[in-house]
Amino acid sequence: MAERTLGVVLYPGFELLDVFGPLEAFGNLPGMVSVTMVAAQAGPVVSAQGPRAVADHGFADAPRLDMILVPGGIGTRDVVEDRALVDWLAARSGAAEIVMSVCTGAALLARAGVLDGQRATTNKAFFQWVADQGPKVEWVRQARWVDAGKYVTSSGVSAGIDMALHVIARLAEHDLADKRAGRELAENLARMMEYQWHTDADVDPFAKVWGLA
Amino acid sequence: MAERTLGVVLYPGFELLDVFGPLEAFGNLPGMVSVTMVAAQAGPVVSAQGPRAVADHGFADAPRLDMILVPGGIGTRDVVEDRALVDWLAARSGAAEIVMSVCTGAALLARAGVLDGQRATTNKAFFQWVADQGPKVEWVRQARWVDAGKYVTSSGVSAGIDMALHVIARLAEHDLADKRAGRELAENLARMMEYQWHTDADVDPFAKVWGLA
Repeated sequence: MAERTLGVVLYPGFELLDVFGPLEAFGNLPGMVSVTMVAAQAGPVVSAQGPRAVADHGFADAPRLDMILVPGGIGTRDVVEDRALVDWLAARSGAAEIVMSVCTGAALLARAGVLDGQRATTNKAFFQWVADQGPKVEWVRQARWVDAGKYVTSSGVSAGIDMALHVIARLAEHDLADKRAGRELAENLARMMEYQWHTDADVDPFAKVWGLA
Repeated sequence: MAERTLGVVLYPGFELLDVFGPLEAFGNLPGMVSVTMVAAQAGPVVSAQGPRAVADHGFADAPRLDMILVPGGIGTRDVVEDRALVDWLAARSGAAEIVMSVCTGAALLARAGVLDGQRATTNKAFFQWVADQGPKVEWVRQARWVDAGKYVTSSGVSAGIDMALHVIARLAEHDLADKRAGRELAENLARMMEYQWHTDADVDPFAKVWGLA
């Protein structure tokens, strides 16, 4: 698998597991994925739950990013109005190979306009608010994640882990030209994480819980 | 539920999901759990995967801790030899109501001597190495987590999320004197996280994967 740089976007009020669930998978692929944390400025960024993570780069000095991960969290309510963040996302998404969101992170991609005309999903508990941020997006009400090619969006919080394993399998399959090898790489990661991977993107028990199915 | 302070121990090479999986649950109980991050010194601590989290306190100035969470990660190989960390764990565990470990974090509690004579579990891929750190511990080869009362230890990485939800249900049940209400609090958290909680501590598919069952 060719080495790719993954940029994870942090902002005040990001949801912890939206970031660190996917990073438990992407972060355990040395030589294949190099992870960098990006925020408005380099330095500590407070999560929705209180603990702080450190941004390695500010938006202005972030390196070239092959992949971008946008978490959700209560902070999205404020940062959908943050022009600098939304414009940066629009610009960097254009240059990236794959752009992912977890949970309400899809609201930020929607505001950036990059999901227009595409299928996408988000957290089921706050579905309508996110959908309102992108009236031209084809929002999917029942999906663990939606793979629209370049843009891959997941449902709430834990769904980001399932999406990350899917993206890893897809990229490894592509690079190795071997579907089985891609799937095995992701399955090995899941075993190391002692995680029962939900491999079917269409199985979404939480759509029903939140009245969307 | 009475407010409790949870201290999460960070050290270089901690596993991201061991920390932030349980914190996704404990961190979403404002007024019930107050989270503080503790390390040798206050400031950034690098994870096994590269991203850094910020310690709010050094060991010397940590506040009173009602609960302690000890993550695992490749860094445990070094810090089992760190007398200051192991002695701090022994002292603070004595004063705490509940002490938890995730994955190879159990090796640190074992070295601190606090698990002697108790049932405990750990990551299944590195089971023997952890068991060797505490020859007087009653190591359980097949368990998603083990609740020995004050000490609650989980299997690898993702198992920490299941353990955290169990501990929350147990504490809420105790405080409210209502088993059903305790369980509902944890189930509501799992729904918010869109997480399918593995509620049976004895069901451990990974023991078989790693040849322990």
